[in-house]
Order: sequence, then structure tokens, then C-alpha cells
Amino acid sequence: MSKLNVTQKLIKSHLIEGEMKPGEEIGLKIDQALLQDATGTLVQLELEAMGLDRAKTEVAVQYVDHNLLQTDFKNADDHKFLKSAAQRFGLWFSRPGNGVSHPVHMERFGKPGKTLVGSDSHSCAAGSLGMLAIGTGGLDVAAAIAGQPYFVKMPQVMGVKLTGKMPDWVSAKDVVLEMLRRHDVKGGVGKIIEYYGDGLKELSAMDRHVIANMGAELGATTTVFPSDEETRRFLKSQDREEDWTELLADEGCEYELHDEIVLDDLVPLIALPTSPGNVVPVSEVAGKEISQVVIGSSANPGLRDFWVASAIVKDKSVSPEVSFDINPTSRQIMQNMIDNKTFGNLIKSGARFHQSGCMGCIGMGQAPASGTISLRTMPRNFPDRSGTKDDQVHLCSPETAAASALTGKITDPRDLEELYDMKYPKFEYPTYEIINTDMLVAPIDNNKDIELEKGPNIKTLPHIPKLQSEYRVPVLLKMGDNVSTDEILKAGAEVLPYRSNLPEISKYSYTVIDESFYDRAMKAKDSHGGHVVVAAENYAQGSSREHAALAPKYLGQVAVIAKNYARIAWQNLVNFGILPLEFVNESDYDKIEQGDEIELKDVVESVKTGDNIKVIIHKDNDKKIEIETKHTLSDRQIQILIKGGIINDFKEKL
Amino acid sequence: MSKLNVTQKLIKSHLIEGEMKPGEEIGLKIDQALLQDATGTLVQLELEAMGLDRAKTEVAVQYVDHNLLQTDFKNADDHKFLKSAAQRFGLWFSRPGNGVSHPVHMERFGKPGKTLVGSDSHSCAAGSLGMLAIGTGGLDVAAAIAGQPYFVKMPQVMGVKLTGKMPDWVSAKDVVLEMLRRHDVKGGVGKIIEYYGDGLKELSAMDRHVIANMGAELGATTTVFPSDEETRRFLKSQDREEDWTELLADEGCEYELHDEIVLDDLVPLIALPTSPGNVVPVSEVAGKEISQVVIGSSANPGLRDFWVASAIVKDKSVSPEVSFDINPTSRQIMQNMIDNKTFGNLIKSGARFHQSGCMGCIGMGQAPASGTISLRTMPRNFPDRSGTKDDQVHLCSPETAAASALTGKITDPRDLEELYDMKYPKFEYPTYEIINTDMLVAPIDNNKDIELEKGPNIKTLPHIPKLQSEYRVPVLLKMGDNVSTDEILKAGAEVLPYRSNLPEISKYSYTVIDESFYDRAMKAKDSHGGHVVVAAENYAQGSSREHAALAPKYLGQVAVIAKNYARIAWQNLVNFGILPLEFVNESDYDKIEQGDEIELKDVVESVKTGDNIKVIIHKDNDKKIEIETKHTLSDRQIQILIKGGIINDFKEKL
Repeated sequence: MSKLNVTQKLIKSHLIEGEMKPGEEIGLKIDQALLQDATGTLVQLELEAMGLDRAKTEVAVQYVDHNLLQTDFKNADDHKFLKSAAQRFGLWFSRPGNGVSHPVHMERFGKPGKTLVGSDSHSCAAGSLGMLAIGTGGLDVAAAIAGQPYFVKMPQVMGVKLTGKMPDWVSAKDVVLEMLRRHDVKGGVGKIIEYYGDGLKELSAMDRHVIANMGAELGATTTVFPSDEETRRFLKSQDREEDWTELLADEGCEYELHDEIVLDDLVPLIALPTSPGNVVPVSEVAGKEISQVVIGSSANPGLRDFWVASAIVKDKSVSPEVSFDINPTSRQIMQNMIDNKTFGNLIKSGARFHQSGCMGCIGMGQAPASGTISLRTMPRNFPDRSGTKDDQVHLCSPETAAASALTGKITDPRDLEELYDMKYPKFEYPTYEIINTDMLVAPIDNNKDIELEKGPNIKTLPHIPKLQSEYRVPVLLKMGDNVSTDEILKAGAEVLPYRSNLPEISKYSYTVIDESFYDRAMKAKDSHGGHVVVAAENYAQGSSREHAALAPKYLGQVAVIAKNYARIAWQNLVNFGILPLEFVNESDYDKIEQGDEIELKDVVESVKTGDNIKVIIHKDNDKKIEIETKHTLSDRQIQILIKGGIINDFKEKL
Repeated sequence: MSKLNVTQKLIKSHLIEGEMKPGEEIGLKIDQALLQDATGTLVQLELEAMGLDRAKTEVAVQYVDHNLLQTDFKNADDHKFLKSAAQRFGLWFSRPGNGVSHPVHMERFGKPGKTLVGSDSHSCAAGSLGMLAIGTGGLDVAAAIAGQPYFVKMPQVMGVKLTGKMPDWVSAKDVVLEMLRRHDVKGGVGKIIEYYGDGLKELSAMDRHVIANMGAELGATTTVFPSDEETRRFLKSQDREEDWTELLADEGCEYELHDEIVLDDLVPLIALPTSPGNVVPVSEVAGKEISQVVIGSSANPGLRDFWVASAIVKDKSVSPEVSFDINPTSRQIMQNMIDNKTFGNLIKSGARFHQSGCMGCIGMGQAPASGTISLRTMPRNFPDRSGTKDDQVHLCSPETAAASALTGKITDPRDLEELYDMKYPKFEYPTYEIINTDMLVAPIDNNKDIELEKGPNIKTLPHIPKLQSEYRVPVLLKMGDNVSTDEILKAGAEVLPYRSNLPEISKYSYTVIDESFYDRAMKAKDSHGGHVVVAAENYAQGSSREHAALAPKYLGQVAVIAKNYARIAWQNLVNFGILPLEFVNESDYDKIEQGDEIELKDVVESVKTGDNIKVIIHKDNDKKIEIETKHTLSDRQIQILIKGGIINDFKEKL
């Protein structure tokens, strides 16, 4: 392995434990950490529990971009808490309204050649700058901030060669939608996707952010781009040219997996409800009436994205049937949008501007009207994520979104040439952008003097008991493929304010799938000491929220039995002491039904030895079926799991 | 009465019924109608129930400015419903995000010499242009739209003479706060306040809007300014000079009541929690730490207001302890703010921009952190209106707000001269403002073809039974002075989405005062067929929401017994068939306690004859006390009340 690809270079330069063999657990030195508010309150409580003196990473930033709607005291209290905690532990603090974490981080802190972990699944977006950036559960980020290595199974590296030239009306979003069309939402599981080839020069740094960001939707561990002259141009435009270093794949390097996209062949694409993997050409669904268009989010955050939308709607009015919602990425981008007339042109066309933040992307406002189609440039369209139960969220490029806002119908942007006699507007990147750092509060020196400001909704974490040797507990839920964390523990304006209050938020566990879950789980906790749930492929895909493990644990979840797991969720389960079991024979999935009881014997011993774990299924009719399950935990993880999770592990170490 | 003041001229030119004697009911021809969304859904349902063909007013506009946070389908569904209803009944529709109703109406539709009713208590703001503009319950507005006269007791006219010159750092908000300091929240009840004198030339048209708007907080029927050369300048700047007519008081005209403000004597003022009447000089409370500043709302909507704040914070950063929230009034003002650098300067200083609308003023977001001080340029600070139970909302001018945002403490803006070596920034009004009408959807010709789009949360109104002759019902609540409609039926992000769903919203009746009210009322409805409540002075001050009458009615409210009533609320009670009784001897208020039962006999007969109405109070110990109550209803209102309210009256007429 003398000739290395970019991924291998990044890993090799940060490898502390393990070997770079796909499937083996490796430990990586972490340079940067990113927290957002919806997961960050828990991380800060964990840092408090760990008794951390001061962050040991080069850069750690607490952003506030999720919980911006203050419909009562809770979110405002959280913002105060996060500021005090950031100051207490030596983190940067990005104030509410300063912007969406990933693009702000890229613009102000990202550095080629560095590693980053973030308590947000889209942290992989920083791969756009030649970083190894991994979204993960909050506890893993807390550990990294405390100076611990980050552990992950060495992924396979999939090289995706880009060739040719991007057609008019097609942009970066269509590239990643094409990847989703080909590989679906679990096509990237266990993989790092590295883009290379001549086609790269068609993609600006922020275009690469779009693609790297939605690598999360492919289930990839992360996405990596090289750091090249375009990366340098970008950093220079951010007045940070000195932070640039070149990071290119060695000529003749190899990839374990291969794919290729000929850019010339791309057409405008759209993901239909209710999965980002449900991708078809826009032309296939053109003409359907829509009620809403939303432009923004970490999946299309760049100045170009807003500019191209503004150029399309300039001097026209959007359809009166459409709410044309714009989420400006950051305060900095607002200043640039004002400067280059994007802001004014959008307003004039009928845009409804919102705060700089995630907003509707996390269901914090912007819920569409009942049963109507919403077109969004966002990364996800899982069921009910928008806040409207019968939502029909479609994901697309800013070009498709803006074209559709004009016509009131899903519209292939290429049709604008005929409809409005329009040429494809092409953005010229400014040499220097207006820079705004005024709402980034720097870490302070005397950080230990700071007291945490905890409002009444901020609750310390309960103790999690260690793993028992035997269980007989009911199967409370049997789920199918690709269940998302949005279904396990929904986001949205109602639930997000409880992210710092475990007893309250646990009441929302699995409510999207089954509203009776909480009551049934509390009963099972009393009567049987807990429960299990069963799932098929890719359990708990989507966001990194560890509440999707911690809340079920609080309700007594002993184990999940699934065909396989999304990466972050699998780590989160272990971190909070839930057994992530896998069927040895996948067909055994059909043998378990909701309402069965399952019996587990000698669990601790089996987990330690790595032997298969026998599961006895007790049916209603006293029939018993025995099946085999396994786990794929590292020795380190086994120790954590047996102790009841990483918090107990930390407490023991201190 | 040959020499008339402006108020008398406006009334005289629109008088259809009655005589212009204070206290007599008069009927006025209404030229314009204003609806906002939180009250408008009900009004549109009423127009539907009335079977209206098409609006008969010269101009009627349905605004959407209250329910802008779409945390689920309900608000978005309401927006679609309101658009369909506006088109159906021949109204203008101001799309969500287009802006706050009162300033947008003033800029685009207001005309000197015209009358207006609006289903929002701050509709009086249009008095700034020389209009007679009255906030009232939705049913009254529906009736006006249907071509009916508007009925109101002829108020007394209080002439307020303005003299002298406005000192630096003092602005229009301080003028109306001075009025509130002198007269408190019921000082304007039964009065129209007319400003005159040389001091008027110190006030721009939009400054007058500030003062007229918060006339609502004085309890005034409305506020009236003349239409003079400044009015002309304003309309010209809005490209509407042709809509200007002069309307001045006759020289030597008289006022029934008198007050005078010497502008030179004014100092920056602030209203302390939890009443707009709780006014002291800013200097008295300077130095207290704050967590939030909010600039915007119909009480400080003008370009000058934002500009002066931006000039104060320009090239500085607001305190890191302060959330500096800006609610731009309208899309039009955003374009002007971009044009004159206000927007950029605010953003740069740390501002957090929100949608154009009422936002935190109606508790739709922006709730402050627990137990912290929020400074707002808004009109109201009633308890819990912000969404935070232990809120400490203070009301002040943009100058005071911006100064305090910089220091993180309540700050007298005059201190900026020393603190920052700053001169008072003075705004130059542009000859022409940028005009934006793109999100105002005009009425259509073929309006009868339009179908109403009703989402699942939009419920038709239930039947209200007619007045019985006898009642024996419990006193469910005994309240004190100045109970606001925010306490009777709170606004805020949780409750507002139910404005079109009576059964749901009624669950929030009086919860701010007593959380058990709904359950107790439902029980009393079953066991006794209803209930009464008792209050002291100025019952149901504040907003015009008719839900504060309709929801208690739905729960069986037979009567309110109070010392006296806020004007709009009193009308709303009658409109929905609730008896608004007044103590003949105010000291009898002390004789009734919560938990007593009251007996009413021969009610219908007594109401008709105008005789006093006997109330027998049954105490727990079988003791009986008899007291006398009365009503001050007009014959027209008596008819309505007996029928069970105005809807039944309309149904009968059709």
C-alpha cells in the first residue's frame, strides 16, 4: 500500500490503534469536534459527568442551528446552557441565528488533512475540504473532546470517478441524487466514498459540500474529496488561504470498490416520498401541483445555490399557490446575498425568509399543508419529518425547486428555456466573500470559573444498569427495512425542546410507528424488566441522535435484533448498553412476531467469547423456537456494553 | 357643533344610525375591513355561514401575520383556507410573510377620511392617517364586510395637545408610554383620543402609527390624527399621493376631555412587567441584566425604527448575553432596509432576523429564557404572553432597546452619548420608498366559483342556544381588575393553531389563571347547564380575539358579572350570547365568592325592559344574598343577546 488514496492518507496520518484492514476496528486521533444544539445539550451534560477540565481537540465548536423556534422557555434556556457549557469546557460557541453548523464550520474552521467528529450525521460534509469528517453519536464526540481516540470499523473505500462536463440546469445535488438512485440509502454502509477524476473541476468546494453532506443518506461512514486548487480558491475567498494544504491521491492508488459518473449524462433528479433513495428524473413526475418550495439547509447551503434560485425567479413572481421559503445558511451568507442582490431578488419574487438554521429540515417549522407536495433542497424526506403526517416531501436541486416555485408544479428546470426563454444562469464566485465572525464566541482562558446555567428542563442523566446474564422480555415492535431515527425518535418542534430532558423525550419513542409504544414499554419494564425490538435491514438509518438509543434504553430496551444496522446507530446502541444482535440466518427474521417473548441465556458470557447468542422465541401457544444471533462488536465495545454503556465506563475510569 | 374636530368629522360623514351623543349607540358606514389570520379563520367561517356573495366594503384585506410558525399541518392548512376564502368572498389576500397587517395596510390601502374595522385590537393604528379605525370582534367585521353598519357607543373625544420639540433619544413610543403612565390601561375606555397641536410636526406618519397603535393599550375606542402635509408626504413616498385628502380639525373646535404633552419634557420610558400601564423612566431601572431584545411589531414598525436601532449598533457587536431579535415588518420594508444599509448593519452587529410578522408579540416564537428580562418594542407585556411563564417583558422604544442590546443591561439611550461618544442619529425619510405589492393577491371577478379549502383542523361553528329565563349556575372564577384576553384565552405557538377549531381551543379557556377551569366548566355544564365568572374593573382588556368569548360560551358561560368591561370584549360577549352584567353597587363585588351559586330569574324579561337584574347568591351554608346588576346594551344588542348571539340573528335574517 505504498500508493495511497486520499482516505488512506487521512487515516494513516491519524491512526492510533488497529490496522487499516476493512472491517477491523481502528482508533483515530481527532483534531476537530462539531456539536449542534439538538444533540449538544446531552454532550455537554456528558462532559460535565466526565469532569472534563478543557477540550483537548484543536478546535471544538458548539453550534445552535436546530432549536431556533422559541415557543416556550425550553429552547432559550438550552441556548443559555450551551453558551455557558461551551465557555466552561473551552469550546467555540456559534450563537443562535449565526447559521447551519456544517457550512459555517467549513467556511470558518475546516482544514484539509484534519479529522473531525460531529454529533450530527451530516458532519461528513467537511469531507468536501479534504478532511476525514465523521458524524457520530454524542458520547463519541464527548470522548473525542476529552482527548480519546475515535473508534470505527475500517471501512472499504469506494472510488467514484467523475468525468465529463456538467450539463446546463444540472448541479451538485443531482450528482448525489444519482448516487442515491444507484445505491439507495444503505449502499454506502461500511464504506467511505472518495470522489476523484477530471470531473472534479466541474465542482466548486461548496458543490462538493452538497455531495459530501448527503453521503450520510447513502449510509456511508463518510465522503472524501481531495484538497486541490479549488479548495485553495475557496479558503482564499474565506480569507483563510494559509489554512490550505494540498492533499491529493497518489497516482496509481487503488480503491476497494469502484463506480463512475459521466457528468454529461446527468439529468435533473428528484427523490420521491418518503426516502432519499427513491430517486427518479424530474421529468417523470413533472406537472404535479405543489404547495411549498424550501431552499436552504446543509444539503444546498452555498451562495451559488441561493444565487441560482434568485436568478431563475428574478423579476417574476412565484405562483400564488406556493409558499416559497428561504432558509439563509448563515449571517455571513446573508451579507453576501445582500451584496450580490440575491436577497433582494428572492424577496421581490415572493420569498418568505426564515432564520439562519436548519428550520424545516428538522421539522422546526415549515410543515407543509395537509396532503400537499413540498419540494425541498434538503437532505431527508423520511415520513413525518416535516411535521405533517401525510407529507409528500420531495428532494431536489435549487434549480428544480426554483423552477417549480414559478410554475406551481413540479418542473424540470430545463423546460425554463422554452417556458421563459431563459438561459442557464452561471454563477461567478467572488474572489473574496464578506466574512462575518461576530457571533462566534471564542473559548476563554479562565474556563474553569464558568458555572453551567441549567434551566428547569435540563435534567441530569439517569444511571444505566449493567448487562444481565438472563432476560425474558416481550418483542414490543417488529419493523421492516430502513427504519430511520426519525421514526424511532422524531424531531420536530414538539419533541426537539425535550432533547435535554430524557424522561420527557422518551415518551415519544417509536410514536411515528406505533403510538402505544411508550405505554407498552413502561408496562413491560414493570412486568418483565424490559423489552426487545426486531428490525430488518439498515436499522436506525438517518440522523446521529443518540436519543434514539438512550430513550428506548430508558424505557428498558435490552436488545435490538436486526438483519443489520446503520453505522452510527449501531455505535449508539452499544454506547448506551443496548445489545445490537444480528440474525445468523436472515430468514429467522420471519420467525419472530410482535408479542412473542424472547429468552436470552448466558448473555454476558456469550458476548465476551464472541459465540453465537441463542435466542429462544416463546410463542403465545407455548411453542418455542430457537434461533441463533451474533454480534460484531470489538473487544473495546464488549467491555463497554457489559458495563451498561460508555458513561459507566467513563465513571469507572475516573 | 358647527366647528368639528377630526373625530367628529369622520363620524358625521359616516353616520347611518343614532346621534353623536357620548354614550349613545351609533351605526357607522364602514369603508374598509382588515382581517388577520388568528381571528380571520373564524370571520371567514362566519362569512360562509352568512352565505355572503361578495364583500361590500371598498377594500377588505385578509392578512397572514400571526400564525407563521408551521410546526405541523394546522397553520399551513389555515393559510390555504384563508387564501381560498379571500378569493371566494372578494377580499385581498396578503400572503404569509408579506408583513404585519397594520403597517402594510397603512402603506398600501389606508386613506384619510375613511372608516375601517379590523378583527385585531391594534386596527386603531390606521388612525395615524386620519382614518376612523376601530379594532373589534370578528363577527362585527364580518357584518361590516357584508355591508352592515358598525355599531358602537359614541365615545367622548379626548383632545391631546402636543407642543414643543422632541428631545434627542426620545421618540414616538415614549409619547404613548407617557400617555399610559398618566392614564393606565383603562384610561382610554369609552374615549377616542385625538392628537393636535404644533407638536404634531415632530411626528412622522409612521410615528403617529406607533402612538395610534398603542391607543389600544389605553383601552381607547380608537386614536385619531389629522391628515396633513406629513400625511401627504407619507402617501407620496408610497406612490399614492392621489389617495391623500386633507382632514383637519376646524379652528376653535372643542373636545370633551383635555390633556397636553410638552414634548420637550419627555424622557425615555419603559413599561415594566406585566402591564403596558406600568410605566417608569428608563433611568429608574437602568443596569438590570437582560437576555433578549426584540425590535419590530405593529407598535414600532417603521423604517425609521429599524434604522435608528441599526445606527446605534453600527460597527459594534451586541452583548454575547443578549439574543438580538429583529422582526422586519414586511417584505417591502426588508427591501428598503437592504437599500439603506439598515439590514446589513443589524446583521453585522449580531441580529437574528425572523419572518415578517407578529412573531414574539403574539407568543409565536421568541419566548425568552426562564426568569430573564426581555426588552421589546412591542405593545403588550401581559403575563405569559411571551410563552415563558415567569417572563419579565419590558416595553420600550427602539432607541432604548438597541442601547440595551449593546450593553446587555437596561440602558437609558441618552447614556450612549457618554458610553460610546455617540450623537443621536436622525433619520431622513426617503422621497420614495421601494414599493412591493407582489404578495398581495387581488380579489378576483369570478369569486363565486372558488371552493373553500378546509383542512382537518378547520371546524364549523356549533349552534349557540338562545337566552333562557332562569339559571342557577356556579361561579367558576372570581377575578380582579384588568384581566386580559391573554389570560382568558392565551395566544402563543401552542394555542394559536387551534383558532379555527373551537372544541380544541376551548380547552385553554382561563388556563393562565386556573388550569382546572376547563374540567370544572365541563362538569358545571353537565350538572347545572353552565356557569358564570366574576371580574372587577376593565374585564377582558387587550386583544380583539372573539375566542375569549366564544370558547367560554362553548363551555357554557351564561354571564359575566363585572364592575365594567373593555369595549371590544363587551361587544364580543353580546355577539356570542353571553350576558355582560355590571354591579349596580360596585361594593357587591365583595359579596360573591368563587364556588357560590348564583340564581337569575326572569332574565329575558329584565334584559328587554332594561330593569335591574336580580342576582341571588347562594352560599355554601345555604345563606342567600340578593344583589342588583344591570346591563348597558342597546335595543339592537338586546335582540341579539336574546337570540343567543349575532350568528343566530344572521341565520334568522337569511
